Amino acid sequence: MRYEESVIEGRNAVLEAFRSGKTIDRVFLLKGCQDGPILTIAREARKQGSLIQYVPKERLANLSPGGKHQGVVAYAAAYEYASVEDMFALAKERGEDPFLFLLDGIEDPHNLGAIIRTANLAGAHGVIIPKRRAVGLTAVVAKTSAGALNYTPVAKVSNLTAVMEELKERGLWFVCADMDGQPMYDLELTGPMGLVIGNEGNGVSRLVREHCDMTAAIPMKGDIDSLNASVAAGVLAYEIVRQRWKKG
Amino acid sequence: MRYEESVIEGRNAVLEAFRSGKTIDRVFLLKGCQDGPILTIAREARKQGSLIQYVPKERLANLSPGGKHQGVVAYAAAYEYASVEDMFALAKERGEDPFLFLLDGIEDPHNLGAIIRTANLAGAHGVIIPKRRAVGLTAVVAKTSAGALNYTPVAKVSNLTAVMEELKERGLWFVCADMDGQPMYDLELTGPMGLVIGNEGNGVSRLVREHCDMTAAIPMKGDIDSLNASVAAGVLAYEIVRQRWKKG
Repeated sequence: MRYEESVIEGRNAVLEAFRSGKTIDRVFLLKGCQDGPILTIAREARKQGSLIQYVPKERLANLSPGGKHQGVVAYAAAYEYASVEDMFALAKERGEDPFLFLLDGIEDPHNLGAIIRTANLAGAHGVIIPKRRAVGLTAVVAKTSAGALNYTPVAKVSNLTAVMEELKERGLWFVCADMDGQPMYDLELTGPMGLVIGNEGNGVSRLVREHCDMTAAIPMKGDIDSLNASVAAGVLAYEIVRQRWKKG
Repeated sequence: MRYEESVIEGRNAVLEAFRSGKTIDRVFLLKGCQDGPILTIAREARKQGSLIQYVPKERLANLSPGGKHQGVVAYAAAYEYASVEDMFALAKERGEDPFLFLLDGIEDPHNLGAIIRTANLAGAHGVIIPKRRAVGLTAVVAKTSAGALNYTPVAKVSNLTAVMEELKERGLWFVCADMDGQPMYDLELTGPMGLVIGNEGNGVSRLVREHCDMTAAIPMKGDIDSLNASVAAGVLAYEIVRQRWKKG
């Protein structure tokens, strides 16, 4: 396992990283800079779906670990991403109904790490995260996952609802957590299942929720609004485990 | 709610904090310093059960926010601690069987905050933490608890097993999480209940485990060892909620 955050700076180093097939989460480019190599990097970044941000030179200097950025700093994924196919292959290999986690915009790396850890132990076959407005597989995530990242495939997708549509055609049912749903104990949560967990502050987005087949409410007997996102994911995942266990 | 970490420095300020009844978690004193006011502060600290650490002057200078420590820096609880009696009073007021969380050495403030949040929403009447080798109610804990600290009493005790003995006499049963236990679904988890959660790295200590009536195993279907401590607490707490719900 390697835990170090992978920050790459300088034109050649970043271009080389793209060309070697490394997953680059974000590229920071000097605002207003229009020369050849920078435009080439921007083109590679767009092609591979990395996020591009144009920043002033003070910001770039702060992001640069060695102070030799030449107008570009890139953040590489600490781990390589998997594909949704890898998850189906894993389910098939184990002879189980697919059980996937879909994270609709988890921003805190500690939460993402804890959720990947939970996915591994709950017997899920993978975790799907969106490309935008969400944390990627950083070093903190790798560390917080306590090694689960070495076993549980994580895929990053451009459009969560498009992937949900595809997965529905392959037989998955989707359940998301929301206070307005039915008590989770009353839902039938067996079979091929996608568990949708929303953003820490805003919960599941409207569009994603409309793509869910069921909305599960975790009973709330207290004074505050909601559980921590990774705890909510754990509680709901284990209700799925319980129902599968009872049936198995 | 106030979130700021409360660091107090200087002889008079620290002494005044003790005398005003403020809860001081830790006192750092200059190593080798034996003059009157320092000895008085050490005596007050021992009387009130604060942890005392003697540190070299470089360390003290780092801990001091204003650089005017005069040989003493103290960390005050961001929130006031409650008593176990407050928890029984809350259970009685709600007409419920007492349901308490006991944390055997949680060290990460994010975990402690998330667990207090879970305790609130699972309908528990309080959280008991030990004085030593554990994080107290710091500003990070307060923030991570998402306001739960304003509703759920947290008590800090010197001796967790002694408190467990007392609580057993008042009718509580204790369950702790451990891989070697019985599947949690097979245990009877209704009635007056204490849920014991162990340290992030080492789990529940031997002595505390020997004081538990039941050991519950959360089913682990993955490749790694254990869930995040706050996720494990959530999963087990909600198995208790489910059993109470079914019965209620």
